[in-house]
Amino acid sequence: MNKTERLPNWLKKRAKLSPNRPALEFEGKVLTFRELDSLAEEMAAKLASQNVKRGDSCALLIRNHKDSVVIIHALFYLGVKIVMLNTRLTAAELIWQLRDSEAKLLLSEQYFCEKLNDIQSFMQEISIIEKEDLASIRGIEDVAILEEFDLHETATIMYTSGTTGNPKGVIQTFGNHWWSAIGSVLNLGLTEQDSWYCAVPIFHISGLSIFMRNVIYGMKVVLVDKFNETEANQMIIENGVTIISVVTTMLNRMLINLGSEKYPNSFRCMLLGGGPAPRYMLLECKEKGIPVYQTYGMTETSSQIVTLAPEDSLQKIGSAGKALFPSQLRIEKDGLEAEPNQPGEIVVKGPNVTQGYLNRKEATDEAIKNGWLYTGDIGYVDEEGYLFVMDRRSDLIISGGENVYPAEIEAVVSSHPDVFEAGVTGVSDEVWGQIAVAFVVRKPGSELTEKQIIEYCLTCLASYKVPKRVIFCEELPRNASNKLLRRELRKRLED
Amino acid sequence: MNKTERLPNWLKKRAKLSPNRPALEFEGKVLTFRELDSLAEEMAAKLASQNVKRGDSCALLIRNHKDSVVIIHALFYLGVKIVMLNTRLTAAELIWQLRDSEAKLLLSEQYFCEKLNDIQSFMQEISIIEKEDLASIRGIEDVAILEEFDLHETATIMYTSGTTGNPKGVIQTFGNHWWSAIGSVLNLGLTEQDSWYCAVPIFHISGLSIFMRNVIYGMKVVLVDKFNETEANQMIIENGVTIISVVTTMLNRMLINLGSEKYPNSFRCMLLGGGPAPRYMLLECKEKGIPVYQTYGMTETSSQIVTLAPEDSLQKIGSAGKALFPSQLRIEKDGLEAEPNQPGEIVVKGPNVTQGYLNRKEATDEAIKNGWLYTGDIGYVDEEGYLFVMDRRSDLIISGGENVYPAEIEAVVSSHPDVFEAGVTGVSDEVWGQIAVAFVVRKPGSELTEKQIIEYCLTCLASYKVPKRVIFCEELPRNASNKLLRRELRKRLED
Repeated sequence: MNKTERLPNWLKKRAKLSPNRPALEFEGKVLTFRELDSLAEEMAAKLASQNVKRGDSCALLIRNHKDSVVIIHALFYLGVKIVMLNTRLTAAELIWQLRDSEAKLLLSEQYFCEKLNDIQSFMQEISIIEKEDLASIRGIEDVAILEEFDLHETATIMYTSGTTGNPKGVIQTFGNHWWSAIGSVLNLGLTEQDSWYCAVPIFHISGLSIFMRNVIYGMKVVLVDKFNETEANQMIIENGVTIISVVTTMLNRMLINLGSEKYPNSFRCMLLGGGPAPRYMLLECKEKGIPVYQTYGMTETSSQIVTLAPEDSLQKIGSAGKALFPSQLRIEKDGLEAEPNQPGEIVVKGPNVTQGYLNRKEATDEAIKNGWLYTGDIGYVDEEGYLFVMDRRSDLIISGGENVYPAEIEAVVSSHPDVFEAGVTGVSDEVWGQIAVAFVVRKPGSELTEKQIIEYCLTCLASYKVPKRVIFCEELPRNASNKLLRRELRKRLED
Repeated sequence: MNKTERLPNWLKKRAKLSPNRPALEFEGKVLTFRELDSLAEEMAAKLASQNVKRGDSCALLIRNHKDSVVIIHALFYLGVKIVMLNTRLTAAELIWQLRDSEAKLLLSEQYFCEKLNDIQSFMQEISIIEKEDLASIRGIEDVAILEEFDLHETATIMYTSGTTGNPKGVIQTFGNHWWSAIGSVLNLGLTEQDSWYCAVPIFHISGLSIFMRNVIYGMKVVLVDKFNETEANQMIIENGVTIISVVTTMLNRMLINLGSEKYPNSFRCMLLGGGPAPRYMLLECKEKGIPVYQTYGMTETSSQIVTLAPEDSLQKIGSAGKALFPSQLRIEKDGLEAEPNQPGEIVVKGPNVTQGYLNRKEATDEAIKNGWLYTGDIGYVDEEGYLFVMDRRSDLIISGGENVYPAEIEAVVSSHPDVFEAGVTGVSDEVWGQIAVAFVVRKPGSELTEKQIIEYCLTCLASYKVPKRVIFCEELPRNASNKLLRRELRKRLED
């Protein structure tokens, strides 16, 4: 018998252990764990009355809101797998993920009614529920709540793309989330005063993982709908926030807004993920005594897998740290472990790493070998074992914390009738970290303009993915086997 | 593939993550995690040269000492199961456990040379190594160190008795130790300043578990050979100790020694285990603002399984708290879950709970049903879910933190040629919490004295087990099926 497979239902257990602790602050109101559990139980009963049941897959299209947290726990209570949808996607992109995930139900909110109408018109087979519709529904009285979570069962599915263009559903089990939370607490520690500020999207692993820690640690989370640097700084300075998850653009804006003010000593962790951070910014933080913990992780690792340690946060500027306690890291070059300081592919392992992609055996086998996940990212480890990430997934563009996959954009641009071929790459940007730039070879005689291409993209791509610049050229750089060399595109830009 | 089964070798991983943090303070000298790892590796190489190898069982008879910590990790490095022996046992008792555990090797120190001689003379088949002999040995250069720990593999075996008299080896896997450490950190939290004082024996789970947390948390431990209340108080007041594990007698002595002095705010947890605590003592602690966390646990749960939470430590006087996050608790009476405030048997479950007793299928099946461990202890849970332990294992006597099993003492007393029968029970004692008292029915005509019985016991029982009083009587109270009623003995004492 495998004793480590099952744990008590997390929020239920937390509500028993520390019912009166603050669990969630949203729009100035604080819920305790007991209250959060009551709401989740009530929501579970309502969903059960709508025939949502154990083993189903339910997609969520929801904004950062108290109700979203309640819904997530309610679905866990019912044993329903959750497909987390990026709210910035177009209806077409959402339909693709809904079909791929075979979700029976889409749970959303009136705010997205236009997208929902579009989806419904293309997908008669899916039930769509807006959370507002649930208000008047009476729940089933004796709804069966999962008493235990099986760590090997799927909790959530999140889509990521990659070099192939088509998004793949990353399977995140309860165990993946659990071990991620444990790896983090063994690095960052935990105090009774802790309060984690969540201004990153709940539908991303960066946001969702905060709510796993929330119940596992019994730690307060302050949730906001949308990031605002003035408010974030105020919450740290005046409202006892001790930890915040940020990406480069957020930190940049917070620093400008902070000016010469200082954070209190109670503020103990600026957890900086989502791609490379400019050195000048890290140095400015060091000067101001702001404890920046650079971290490296992805959907496939259920959040952080490599993070700086407390004693290094002001020392090892530019490094993402070392693999968290339950995890392992190595750099591979030509199939062998690279020497210190020698760049290669970042390869990781640990109980927080996904078992694979939904219904994608081939992609899974390609990414995960012998328990090791081949991230496609490039980096090196120094003599002391600290990871320096050089390049995310060679081609990946990270714009405002969102992953943008060149192949996906290229497919869209190339589908324009006047485009012969297209290549996309990222370029540094002061505001967004990186932005996408498209290189386009027009068909002979075409007079297609940059504006026309951008408008075309906006009809089928989430706006954050749309190239901000289009450069017309005669041909694209390709290697002998005709593979597009996106690095060469970047070089052209740099020149 | 079960992703949660393997973790990186704990001390190795910790030495990589935080090589320069203080790991262990002993006799005023501090080792870092890097140094501890080096010593463990060196020790592993030496042991390997003595033909100690993966899959072997090695018994340890060692005192609280820096070397003991090194030896434990070295054996883990080699993949050797450790049988932890209580140093207070007699040679006869040790031989019993060595035979039962089928240990190939006994690793000890010169300090115990007399006992070791006795053991060797009865057990020619066992190799005995004193740690001092290893000093001059050159280790194998390329010794194979386990890179990963399998959470389902046995790490340690510790003997406990129970109502049947014969000690049973409790199997503690790496997973049991891991989950115990995680359950504790999710309750107590973890800060960079933490320093755990270990004055309880390493061969008990109370001591050993501190060294598991040591490497898993990356937290400093201050180890002492023997508890001394003046020193303990001094370490808290002047040397930054933040957490200490104590049993009632230790806390009592610390309070008397402390007088009107106060502990600093940095001191955050007096973890009080090992049996019932007198209410006046807990109230005195509350008055002095000492954060006492009562806890309930046993060898079978790899240390704590129920512990007070920070917010309750000064509120719920007398309660042991609630089951830790990964664990569950219920009170059973006549096969059903008891109502709040209704006493019954304490039944627990969790990934920290042992899979069973070494080579004792029947005893295992009796104790563990459907994943739930029937502790034999009596208690109740109040309306808010807090456990109050009323009686340890009905018959168990806890004397100075050591478990004393009446059946074992009765077997010894009854073996005296002049004794007809004997019954043993515990009685409260100001110094030791409880002491053992023997009720003896002499054979007709015998004039056996109390002193003779105590001397007889000292020849074959560890001194902490020897009855401090002997009461002669005409007959022992028995029920219809002739079972000795030890509770009646206690009543006689109270009357």
